[in-house]
Amino acid sequence: MNNLSNTIIVAKESKQMTWQAIADALEMSTVWTTSACLGMNSMPKDKAEALCSLLELGPEVCAALQKYPTKVWQQTVPTDPLIYRFYEIMGVYGDTLKEVIQEKFGDGIMSAIDFNMEVEKEENPNGDRVVVTMNGKFLKYKSW
Amino acid sequence: MNNLSNTIIVAKESKQMTWQAIADALEMSTVWTTSACLGMNSMPKDKAEALCSLLELGPEVCAALQKYPTKVWQQTVPTDPLIYRFYEIMGVYGDTLKEVIQEKFGDGIMSAIDFNMEVEKEENPNGDRVVVTMNGKFLKYKSW
Amino acid sequence: MNNLSNTIIVAKESKQMTWQAIADALEMSTVWTTSACLGMNSMPKDKAEALCSLLELGPEVCAALQKYPTKVWQQTVPTDPLIYRFYEIMGVYGDTLKEVIQEKFGDGIMSAIDFNMEVEKEENPNGDRVVVTMNGKFLKYKSW
Amino acid sequence: MNNLSNTIIVAKESKQMTWQAIADALEMSTVWTTSACLGMNSMPKDKAEALCSLLELGPEVCAALQKYPTKVWQQTVPTDPLIYRFYEIMGVYGDTLKEVIQEKFGDGIMSAIDFNMEVEKEENPNGDRVVVTMNGKFLKYKSW
Amino acid sequence: MNNLSNTIIVAKESKQMTWQAIADALEMSTVWTTSACLGMNSMPKDKAEALCSLLELGPEVCAALQKYPTKVWQQTVPTDPLIYRFYEIMGVYGDTLKEVIQEKFGDGIMSAIDFNMEVEKEENPNGDRVVVTMNGKFLKYKSW
Amino acid sequence: MNNLSNTIIVAKESKQMTWQAIADALEMSTVWTTSACLGMNSMPKDKAEALCSLLELGPEVCAALQKYPTKVWQQTVPTDPLIYRFYEIMGVYGDTLKEVIQEKFGDGIMSAIDFNMEVEKEENPNGDRVVVTMNGKFLKYKSW
Amino acid sequence: MNNLSNTIIVAKESKQMTWQAIADALEMSTVWTTSACLGMNSMPKDKAEALCSLLELGPEVCAALQKYPTKVWQQTVPTDPLIYRFYEIMGVYGDTLKEVIQEKFGDGIMSAIDFNMEVEKEENPNGDRVVVTMNGKFLKYKSW
Amino acid sequence: MNNLSNTIIVAKESKQMTWQAIADALEMSTVWTTSACLGMNSMPKDKAEALCSLLELGPEVCAALQKYPTKVWQQTVPTDPLIYRFYEIMGVYGDTLKEVIQEKFGDGIMSAIDFNMEVEKEENPNGDRVVVTMNGKFLKYKSW
Amino acid sequence: MNNLSNTIIVAKESKQMTWQAIADALEMSTVWTTSACLGMNSMPKDKAEALCSLLELGPEVCAALQKYPTKVWQQTVPTDPLIYRFYEIMGVYGDTLKEVIQEKFGDGIMSAIDFNMEVEKEENPNGDRVVVTMNGKFLKYKSW
Amino acid sequence: MNNLSNTIIVAKESKQMTWQAIADALEMSTVWTTSACLGMNSMPKDKAEALCSLLELGPEVCAALQKYPTKVWQQTVPTDPLIYRFYEIMGVYGDTLKEVIQEKFGDGIMSAIDFNMEVEKEENPNGDRVVVTMNGKFLKYKSW
Repeated sequence: MNNLSNTIIVAKESKQMTWQAIADALEMSTVWTTSACLGMNSMPKDKAEALCSLLELGPEVCAALQKYPTKVWQQTVPTDPLIYRFYEIMGVYGDTLKEVIQEKFGDGIMSAIDFNMEVEKEENPNGDRVVVTMNGKFLKYKSW
Repeated sequence: MNNLSNTIIVAKESKQMTWQAIADALEMSTVWTTSACLGMNSMPKDKAEALCSLLELGPEVCAALQKYPTKVWQQTVPTDPLIYRFYEIMGVYGDTLKEVIQEKFGDGIMSAIDFNMEVEKEENPNGDRVVVTMNGKFLKYKSW
Repeated sequence: MNNLSNTIIVAKESKQMTWQAIADALEMSTVWTTSACLGMNSMPKDKAEALCSLLELGPEVCAALQKYPTKVWQQTVPTDPLIYRFYEIMGVYGDTLKEVIQEKFGDGIMSAIDFNMEVEKEENPNGDRVVVTMNGKFLKYKSW
Repeated sequence: MNNLSNTIIVAKESKQMTWQAIADALEMSTVWTTSACLGMNSMPKDKAEALCSLLELGPEVCAALQKYPTKVWQQTVPTDPLIYRFYEIMGVYGDTLKEVIQEKFGDGIMSAIDFNMEVEKEENPNGDRVVVTMNGKFLKYKSW
Repeated sequence: MNNLSNTIIVAKESKQMTWQAIADALEMSTVWTTSACLGMNSMPKDKAEALCSLLELGPEVCAALQKYPTKVWQQTVPTDPLIYRFYEIMGVYGDTLKEVIQEKFGDGIMSAIDFNMEVEKEENPNGDRVVVTMNGKFLKYKSW
Repeated sequence: MNNLSNTIIVAKESKQMTWQAIADALEMSTVWTTSACLGMNSMPKDKAEALCSLLELGPEVCAALQKYPTKVWQQTVPTDPLIYRFYEIMGVYGDTLKEVIQEKFGDGIMSAIDFNMEVEKEENPNGDRVVVTMNGKFLKYKSW
Repeated sequence: MNNLSNTIIVAKESKQMTWQAIADALEMSTVWTTSACLGMNSMPKDKAEALCSLLELGPEVCAALQKYPTKVWQQTVPTDPLIYRFYEIMGVYGDTLKEVIQEKFGDGIMSAIDFNMEVEKEENPNGDRVVVTMNGKFLKYKSW
Repeated sequence: MNNLSNTIIVAKESKQMTWQAIADALEMSTVWTTSACLGMNSMPKDKAEALCSLLELGPEVCAALQKYPTKVWQQTVPTDPLIYRFYEIMGVYGDTLKEVIQEKFGDGIMSAIDFNMEVEKEENPNGDRVVVTMNGKFLKYKSW
Repeated sequence: MNNLSNTIIVAKESKQMTWQAIADALEMSTVWTTSACLGMNSMPKDKAEALCSLLELGPEVCAALQKYPTKVWQQTVPTDPLIYRFYEIMGVYGDTLKEVIQEKFGDGIMSAIDFNMEVEKEENPNGDRVVVTMNGKFLKYKSW
Repeated sequence: MNNLSNTIIVAKESKQMTWQAIADALEMSTVWTTSACLGMNSMPKDKAEALCSLLELGPEVCAALQKYPTKVWQQTVPTDPLIYRFYEIMGVYGDTLKEVIQEKFGDGIMSAIDFNMEVEKEENPNGDRVVVTMNGKFLKYKSW
């Protein structure tokens, strides 16, 4: 975790706020807000200012939040079980996703840039369920 | 691609059917049906029989569809752009998913076994969008 | 080893306690107690408080023990001989475990989350034996 | 899967026998019997003969079963979810196993050679559970 | 090289045509035409038909050219010197490209899907030069 | 990022200059200037002096800029999406580049040393486009 | 090299002692003594005390020498030429060792735990020779 | 295993000979003879002829045995337990071997080319022991 | 080894020619001639014709020799001892080569394309020596 | 770069000496002298003293220069273009070197220990050339 994220998390904990409460205050989604605080997305100026005001963080944090981060992950195959399960889904269902998406849309991909994601809790008497919704623009391969 | 999948795809193409049409005939989802045909899930007996009847495939295909497959993928990091984007999402948003899911549910994971997934097309004047919905049971870590 | 674990181990050694004695005091198993102290499981509040009381550790340790750890291991193939032997067992007997478990239970897996493990010493005149018992919930693959 | 295993599995399926039934006929455990049939252990002569008699396999299979196999696995990190969970357990609990075993036994390891393993089904109203018991001789490090 | 590509290359050589001549006949660029013939892009129906007519290839080639290929490369780091130099450029200038593109465009990436590329020969008395022009749509990161 | 680069970037930000403005002041291209400031190319003495004068940096920076850097990158496959797309282009189009360049020039490679690169912004109503132009001397394989 | 080893080596050098002289003083072999000082074996209490007395090291070194080390090596394939040659021997002669040992002993392995090793110098007019003798207990595979 | 080795092993088994008996007939060591038959060393002409006479193999085998093999092993880290233990010894004792050898001989290495190795069985009431003796010329680093 | 190389080697052996004799007949160096026959360099038309005439090979071999090969090696770190020693030299002396070459020539590299290499035997009473001479054009880094 | 090398390089730069001048003063070759200063070879006592006298370095540097270094390189495949080209030469010409050396000398290798190397500048109107000469003792494989 980088310094920026660490500073934010310490402030978040000292104020006993959740990611969701922070996101609500910024009028942004929880997933995007968390990702920006973890250094995986840049914040527009107004959102960075709102966050720093909310968590009483200084201008250097506000500036850092607006920088365009270099997105790096250390583990080619993640070890944490929660994250690994998403890797496993990609491995088990990768070819299926390719078949189904390309059958519906033609030859192309789902963008991971023009993209958003939500996480919801679905209550269920047999055990609550995690619902993750990914929404990305379809990009068609070009010929030239 | 294994022999089973190859046989099914040849039959599917000669009948000019889509995965969705096959899934509808089986009264199952397109994602699950495709994954079973690609050798990544086993089919219950009635579904295997329905598929073989639909595609005019023999009893050895029917038996093979019911076997419990060993799930193997060759590429630790996938190269196909469509599949890589899901890998990238896991890399960029993995820590975010961990933070958000565990804030909502406590310490645990989303199951990739008690799990389903849907792919939808969202029409949009700025370009259609791919919507992938993952739904997995939350599994809580135990102490003992 | 992270700071949390290091702090606990220093306290444990200065009090000349064993993992088993600590676990007994917490009324939890030795394996789970050790894993939580090594930063691989989170502790419920009451257990964290009991541990900190027992080892005379401060509230920041108590808070850290309750956090949901990101589980990371550095070595894809472990080098320490004791740990490597478990890796070797997985390599030699992995396909066997798959055959035997799925023959008994159907298509699915043993959960590593809804899971517990015990280690016992079996005295034997030809040399004592290590007995490791793993107990995980069977999770059945779903079709949808 | 090698040719030996393939021949045995085809015979097993044509006779509609389970691994457990084969093991019972050999008066050996299911885990060991399966591992030998999958080419990961050599069989004593009498067991190889009993197996070939039971499954009506020829003398070249009987000879092959008695050879000392070179134990090879292709995937450093297994992808099949059932097998991966055992890898994950080794990653999450490896240091714990080291601490607990060495606290009980002194400096040394659990043998993976002078070793046996059982798999049992534990019925449970909240979902049946897989119970895996590993039993290996403790080997003490020597000084010289 | 897959069978499709091999068939095309054999036909191309027997007709002693260049990639450029084939591309000109298709009224498409040389780079795109070559990439489709090497199995890295799908061809629209009319182009596939034109190619098969030009090279006297059968309808099964025409169908194969229209399929959406799974893009796979075997070497994480390419060994062929010509291809390696492009890998080296990415390694040496990757951070520079990030700085310069994001300074000009804001936080986002150059698409590799909505993308085209040309290769030209620049004559030069000190030695001719290869000019490679990449042209990809800028995709801006979204916040949500 | 090394110390040299960090010092330059801090100075650049405190003066609120762009890479392009710095390059213009040095009468060099933006790509080359940025790469030298990021420690991936050495600067001739006059350019190093001009840069240090412009950014008010000391003689030790001026000396460091003239050293011949050892070019190192940490990630065999880059994770940042902007840089990964160039890796993907090399993977998807590597064999194509080999075919097309060698058809035009004969057996040889494009130099990555006697090489330059430009990045331009192409305005486009459907979304601006990034244009990257690589220009390297063709080097012919020798026989001897 | 860890701190423990470093402390011992500094003391060894300041006393201008060889590993052999230290081992002789401990009445243990040179190989084992060196391995324990390098943190790859634990010392019995009396040997640790003798070493610390000999090298005038404090009680914290004495305690550290008795701990059960986690054996870690960083390089999957060693680069130092002396160590690499042993890796090469394992690669070139690994299958041969398997054939020869198992021909002499049956199906099993040579223990690396119940194991000792000596290094001797064999004088030879054509160049002195290194003689390494490994001695490990044969462990037979069990059936059960 | 290559074709040469396979042919020899089939002949060896049909004649029910051991490696040791073959080696004795050739008046060479068991280890070297086995390594040459497994394709890891070339045989002098007289030994190749003696082997082919002994096992009634044709002149093409005799010629192949005299070729200089390219020594290749597939597994960077071997998985077979017998071979892995030698890898583990290299990992655990590699630095020790370096210290001890260089203390005895000065700066240099043990040759793996001007090298021989023997395997002996040492009977022992507590379990027989494998004794492996490696003997390689010491090669001193040169300065120039 | 590819088919081309195999065909040439079979012909070379049936004619009992050495690489040096073939090279002399072609009036080219032994190293280059061998590399082209092993599929790592393309031959000019006249040399390919001379080779095919010399070894009585057909026109399809002649055509194949003139193709521009894709240079691929399978082992990132070579295992054959002869080839590994060159890898080791690159590892041990890589930084030294960089220092010494750049001190003599300025910032740049030695070309591996505009390059030739010779291997000579130097007789020596203490053991003959292999002399490898590499000769590559110095390529200076450009600024732009 | 380790501390020893860093100390020497700082001294070398403050005295504005080249590697060649240092080597001449030591009456040793430039390549060997540089490699010892970079920590890849040990220096005999007289050379270490001469170097420390020349560069006015203290006795701890003199002692460190005489130690037998553990030779480590971090990058399996080097990224710096100058060093990579030597890796590429090993990949492209490795099999050729094996063929040519073994044709001239018989089955064996070129030693990388009893070895020296020179780098010369060859002036050439078409661009100066780097000439690297490697000279290693031929070591013959033994049979026993």
